[in-house]
Amino acid sequence: MPMSNPDMTDPLPLAQRLIACPSVTPATGAVFEALEAMLAPLGFTVDRWITGDKPDGPVENLIALRANGPGMHFAFAGHLDVVPPGNGWASDPYQPEVRGELLHGRGAVDMKGSIASFVAALPACLDLPGSISLLITGDEEGVATYGTRAIMERMAAQGIKPDLCLVGEPTSVNRLGDMVKIGRRGSVNMWITVAGTQGHVAYPHLADNPIPRLVRILAAIEAIELDAGNDWFQPSNIEITDVSVGNEATNMIPGEARARISIRFNDIHTGAGLTERIQALVEAEGGTLTSQISGESFLTPPGEFSTLISEAITEATGLTTELSTTGGTSDARFLSALCPVVEFGLCNATMHKLDEAVAVQDLVTLRDIYTAIVRKAMVQAA
Amino acid sequence: MPMSNPDMTDPLPLAQRLIACPSVTPATGAVFEALEAMLAPLGFTVDRWITGDKPDGPVENLIALRANGPGMHFAFAGHLDVVPPGNGWASDPYQPEVRGELLHGRGAVDMKGSIASFVAALPACLDLPGSISLLITGDEEGVATYGTRAIMERMAAQGIKPDLCLVGEPTSVNRLGDMVKIGRRGSVNMWITVAGTQGHVAYPHLADNPIPRLVRILAAIEAIELDAGNDWFQPSNIEITDVSVGNEATNMIPGEARARISIRFNDIHTGAGLTERIQALVEAEGGTLTSQISGESFLTPPGEFSTLISEAITEATGLTTELSTTGGTSDARFLSALCPVVEFGLCNATMHKLDEAVAVQDLVTLRDIYTAIVRKAMVQAA
Repeated sequence: MPMSNPDMTDPLPLAQRLIACPSVTPATGAVFEALEAMLAPLGFTVDRWITGDKPDGPVENLIALRANGPGMHFAFAGHLDVVPPGNGWASDPYQPEVRGELLHGRGAVDMKGSIASFVAALPACLDLPGSISLLITGDEEGVATYGTRAIMERMAAQGIKPDLCLVGEPTSVNRLGDMVKIGRRGSVNMWITVAGTQGHVAYPHLADNPIPRLVRILAAIEAIELDAGNDWFQPSNIEITDVSVGNEATNMIPGEARARISIRFNDIHTGAGLTERIQALVEAEGGTLTSQISGESFLTPPGEFSTLISEAITEATGLTTELSTTGGTSDARFLSALCPVVEFGLCNATMHKLDEAVAVQDLVTLRDIYTAIVRKAMVQAA
Repeated sequence: MPMSNPDMTDPLPLAQRLIACPSVTPATGAVFEALEAMLAPLGFTVDRWITGDKPDGPVENLIALRANGPGMHFAFAGHLDVVPPGNGWASDPYQPEVRGELLHGRGAVDMKGSIASFVAALPACLDLPGSISLLITGDEEGVATYGTRAIMERMAAQGIKPDLCLVGEPTSVNRLGDMVKIGRRGSVNMWITVAGTQGHVAYPHLADNPIPRLVRILAAIEAIELDAGNDWFQPSNIEITDVSVGNEATNMIPGEARARISIRFNDIHTGAGLTERIQALVEAEGGTLTSQISGESFLTPPGEFSTLISEAITEATGLTTELSTTGGTSDARFLSALCPVVEFGLCNATMHKLDEAVAVQDLVTLRDIYTAIVRKAMVQAA
C-alpha cells in the first residue's frame, strides 16, 4: 500500500483535530479550516462557502476534489456539524481524550471519526486513476436546508457528478462492519386539526365536540397497514406521536382538537402519496391536514458497489456485513439522486449521547476498509 | 293575605341588602348577618355556624326554623355565595343598582333575589300550622364540601327532617315560571391514563406507543349509547373533554397518553355503575382510570308537589310551566335524599355573567308564587 504522506495515515490525531473544533449544527469556520488543512497537502482543490441565513443557517459546506486523469469519480460524503453535547460528560466534549481503548469527544463516531479515517485512507489511494471527492456539509444534524442539497446544487452548476458515493454515517451496530445501509426509509410528519364548537357539557346540543371526529380519524389511521415490506425494506410504519386538546375545564366541550403523526415509509410509497391518503381520511371528518416531507425513501439495490464494500469489510474484520435499510434518515436521501449511494461507518451506540466515544482501533480498521473500498471501486472501474 | 310585617313584604330592598354584602364562594359573615336580621323578627330561630378549612372552606351555613305547632315541615333551600363578578360591569357588582326595570348586582338571580322573594313571602305564611325552614349555605358555587351536605348532617343530628323542599335556583328560562326542575342528571368526570414506553419513531419495535390504545378506548367510549332517555330525562351523554400527550418532538413515540371524559347521566345509571363500565374498557387496553362523582341524578316524580307549584305559577303568570330535568347539577342532588325536592326560581339568562340582573317585577311575582306554593302545600297537608 503506497504511503505518500506517512503523517497523514494515522486517523487518531486527525479525529482529535476535528473534535477539538466545536461545531454544533449549523456549523461554520474552524472545523472546516482544519479539514481543508488536511486535504490541501494531498492535492485536493478545496471549495468552501457559507450559505443561508438564520434560523436554518448560516451553514458552511466543502467540496474537495482531486482529479488524477480520466477514470471514475468516487465521492465520500459526510458532515462536520454535531448535535449539542448536553451536560454531564466525564471529559470536555471538545477536548478529545483517549481513556483506555476509547477516544472520547462530541462527533467521535457521528462523524468526525469516520471523516478522519477516510482522510487517513487517502494517501494510499492517490495513485489510482480517476477522481476522488469529499462532500462535507455543516448541516446534517439540523434542518439541512442549506446542507447537502446546497452542495448538490453547486456540483450541478459546475458539472461535477460522482459515479459512486460512500456516506460515512455510523452504520455499525455492535462491531465495526456488521452493518451497512443500502437504503433508508422516507419520513413524513403530518399535523391534523379538527375544529368544532366550544360549549358546556350539560348542553351538548349547543356544542360540537371535535374529539370524537379526531378519534375516528386516528382509529382509521391506526387501521391502515401500509405494506408488508419487501425484499429490502421492513414494512412502512405510522406512529401517532401527539394528541392535544388543551382543555382544563371538566365541564367544557373543547372547540379544537389536534394530533400529529409520523410515517417512516419504504420505496413502495412517496411522501406525497401518503399525504394524499391521510388527507382524505381527515377531510372525511371535516378536519384539515398539513404535511412536511423530511425525505423520500431511497434504495441502492445490492450489486457491485455493495458487494465490494462487503468484501472489504470481510477482509479487514472477518465479519459478514448485513445490507440494511433500517433506522432514521440521512443525507443519502438527497445524494441517491446522483449515483449509487451506500452508507458505512463507525459503531453508533454512543452517537448523540453523553461521552460519545470511538475505539481507537476502529478508526484504524475503518481507514483500512475505506482504503480497500476506494481501491476496489476505482480499480474495478479502470 | 295576612301581613304581619308590612315592611318585610317588598323583596326589592331585601335583595339589595343581600347583594350589597360581597360573598364570593365560599362565603361567610356579613351576608348571613343580613339574612339573620330579616328572619329573626319573623320568629325564626337562626342557627349559623362556620365549618371547614382552606381550600374548600371556611363556609358559613344557616338553618332558620319557625315551628307553628304540629303540621308539615316546608323547607326552602338556597345559597348566599356567588361566583366571582369578573371585570367589565356597567355598575359595581356589589352596589345593587336599579336601572329601568332591572336590578343589577352579582347574585341578583343566582340566588340572592329568590331568597329575598322567599323572605318577602314569609309574612303571608306565618299563620299556617306546621314548620317552615330556610336551609342556606355559603358554598353551592364551589366544591360544596362543607355546604348543603354539612347542613344535612346538622339537621340529622338534631332530628330535623322536612316533608317538602323547594330549592330557589334560577330555573326559569325566557319568562319567570316557564320551567321548574323536578330532577337533575348526575355528573361524573373520569381521567384515563395509558402508559407505554417512549422511543424513536424510526425504531417502533423498541417502543410501545400508548396513543393507539387510548384511541381504541375513546372509540369504544364513543360507541356507547347509554340509554335513549325516559319519561322524565333526556338521554345520558358522554363527552370526551380533553386528550393530552404533550409530546413536542416529531420523531419521538410518547410514553404516556391521557384523556378526560364527562358523563351527565339520568336515573337509569349511577356514578359507580358508569365508572365500573368505563373502567372495564380502559383496563382492557392496559390503561388506568380515576373517577370523581360530582353528583348522582335525582328525580321527584311529578305528583302533588309539582302540581301545586304548577298551579301557583299559572295563577300568577298565566303560564303553563314545563317540568324539566335538563341542565347542570344543583344542591337538590343532596337534598333529594331527605324528601321530595323541586327547584324553581328566577330567569337564568344572566346568571354567572357580567351585569347579572333581575326584573324588579319578577321579584314581586316570585314572592307571590312562593307565597302560594307554601300556602297550598301547608294547607293541603293540614
